[in-house]
Amino acid sequence: MRTNNDKKIEVFVLDVDGVMTTGHFLYDKYGKAFKVFGPHDADGLKMIRDMVRILFISADTNGESITRARIERDMGYPLTMVSESERRDFILNQHEDPECIAFMGDGYYDALVFPHVGVSLCPINAREECLEAATFVTPSRSGEGAVMDACLYLVKTGMV
Amino acid sequence: MRTNNDKKIEVFVLDVDGVMTTGHFLYDKYGKAFKVFGPHDADGLKMIRDMVRILFISADTNGESITRARIERDMGYPLTMVSESERRDFILNQHEDPECIAFMGDGYYDALVFPHVGVSLCPINAREECLEAATFVTPSRSGEGAVMDACLYLVKTGMV
Amino acid sequence: MRTNNDKKIEVFVLDVDGVMTTGHFLYDKYGKAFKVFGPHDADGLKMIRDMVRILFISADTNGESITRARIERDMGYPLTMVSESERRDFILNQHEDPECIAFMGDGYYDALVFPHVGVSLCPINAREECLEAATFVTPSRSGEGAVMDACLYLVKTGMV
Amino acid sequence: MRTNNDKKIEVFVLDVDGVMTTGHFLYDKYGKAFKVFGPHDADGLKMIRDMVRILFISADTNGESITRARIERDMGYPLTMVSESERRDFILNQHEDPECIAFMGDGYYDALVFPHVGVSLCPINAREECLEAATFVTPSRSGEGAVMDACLYLVKTGMV
Repeated sequence: MRTNNDKKIEVFVLDVDGVMTTGHFLYDKYGKAFKVFGPHDADGLKMIRDMVRILFISADTNGESITRARIERDMGYPLTMVSESERRDFILNQHEDPECIAFMGDGYYDALVFPHVGVSLCPINAREECLEAATFVTPSRSGEGAVMDACLYLVKTGMV
Repeated sequence: MRTNNDKKIEVFVLDVDGVMTTGHFLYDKYGKAFKVFGPHDADGLKMIRDMVRILFISADTNGESITRARIERDMGYPLTMVSESERRDFILNQHEDPECIAFMGDGYYDALVFPHVGVSLCPINAREECLEAATFVTPSRSGEGAVMDACLYLVKTGMV
Repeated sequence: MRTNNDKKIEVFVLDVDGVMTTGHFLYDKYGKAFKVFGPHDADGLKMIRDMVRILFISADTNGESITRARIERDMGYPLTMVSESERRDFILNQHEDPECIAFMGDGYYDALVFPHVGVSLCPINAREECLEAATFVTPSRSGEGAVMDACLYLVKTGMV
Repeated sequence: MRTNNDKKIEVFVLDVDGVMTTGHFLYDKYGKAFKVFGPHDADGLKMIRDMVRILFISADTNGESITRARIERDMGYPLTMVSESERRDFILNQHEDPECIAFMGDGYYDALVFPHVGVSLCPINAREECLEAATFVTPSRSGEGAVMDACLYLVKTGMV
């Protein structure tokens, strides 16, 4: 277990689907139409945005325009499309010291990145591979305040 | 703990998102498209509307038109757009005696208002800060009858 | 508790919202746009439709066209719009012997009708007033197979 | 209980509604408009698609175009419309040795097929008839990673 006595988290990278959303995709006959975002998370990110660089990643090319509407336009955070295979390198490239990076994800492949960053976080409804590997599992489910929980954790532990 | 032996609740202020809704926002590529309201709550408010002044507040400017469609047009209650920072003053301005005000909210900043009103209520799925500070936590989740629970509580305790 | 030794259920009256649906209403800025129906229930009703007269009631005038699309057009059952205050009389008018009527509801006012019919049913997520008054509470939630549970109950107990 | 010492699963047949989706149908006044798919499942199927033939079946003719948008167009798997009464024969026709067939379903009639195939799987929120008859019940609910669980099960047990 990491003890973050000295180093502060300077970059907070978040996956979108299953972290900021419930993970659900509503489909109609034309394809992916809606994603389900939740309460509290925008408030949490506002608390820490002056203390840490916040950026989002997503591998969901079909749903890119939906994700951009919420993350970029309505909330004002940068979003980069990154495939699962590029995910680890992209995240580690965000800071020269991986101990200064926090990453929040929920998927099977996200869990593989967790050991390589300073702090790893996942919602309680993440894949069990994440639950086992994460520094902190949020009490809330994704789309129900998990990111708010994560932000409060970073603040209360003094990591940001 | 408040014992409401003498004073009746005369104003009931309710937040909308996460109280009357599940808290979820459905996004498509154009932005916030849908909110998820639930059963029973309209019945509960009808029970008490002749005994107490009911008004709704919301800080969600992106979703204002959706909120107005449900709260104002279909249910017939007044809605005022109030930011988190103005929330406490706005609520306390609704009655000269704060003991006569009930407020139902679900968020981190709502919990800060709870100690200042006569009765504070939140759904069981509210932020833990609310669960700790509220006079009454409803057994139902938001969007699944939490406001009905709150109305029955006000009636059964003789507060309205 | 009713023991249905002699009489068969001949009419099965079902509420729609919170029984056939999760109870949720998706609103956009134009009003009530979607209701959420679930799996299994259509299969259950097909099992018993040759043995009992099935009819649906709803008090939701705003959502009437949505309800008719599912219940009447896609599933082929009759739907009557009945307000809460007319509910008890309407239901009891469906058969000269109330012991031959089954009613499935989920709301505060539905519970008041339960003592007057032969068999009353509600989903596990119904109002507690229903849970206390019903002959049978289904193990499934509404919109997740509660009506299938109800149909299997009527078959397995020999009531239809 | 089956011990799959010798034979590998060569065909994996999956139902769509209640397996790949939450089972919910969103209706508007024109009819069935949306289905709710979930995270992780596409990742799971990709893991095994080179080792086993994957095909989907559905009895939902009203929702066929929605199902095809997700399963065929966005994920690239074949989908065949098969009614409940044809289901058993269709599945058993996919391989000359039924021990080489895996089937994942969630409904009352799916459970009747389970004893006839090599491996039967269902999500934890399937009908109890499935829970009792299945070789493996996934820890995740449908639309929340149940198919990912199923794929990992087939891999970890050496069945594919």
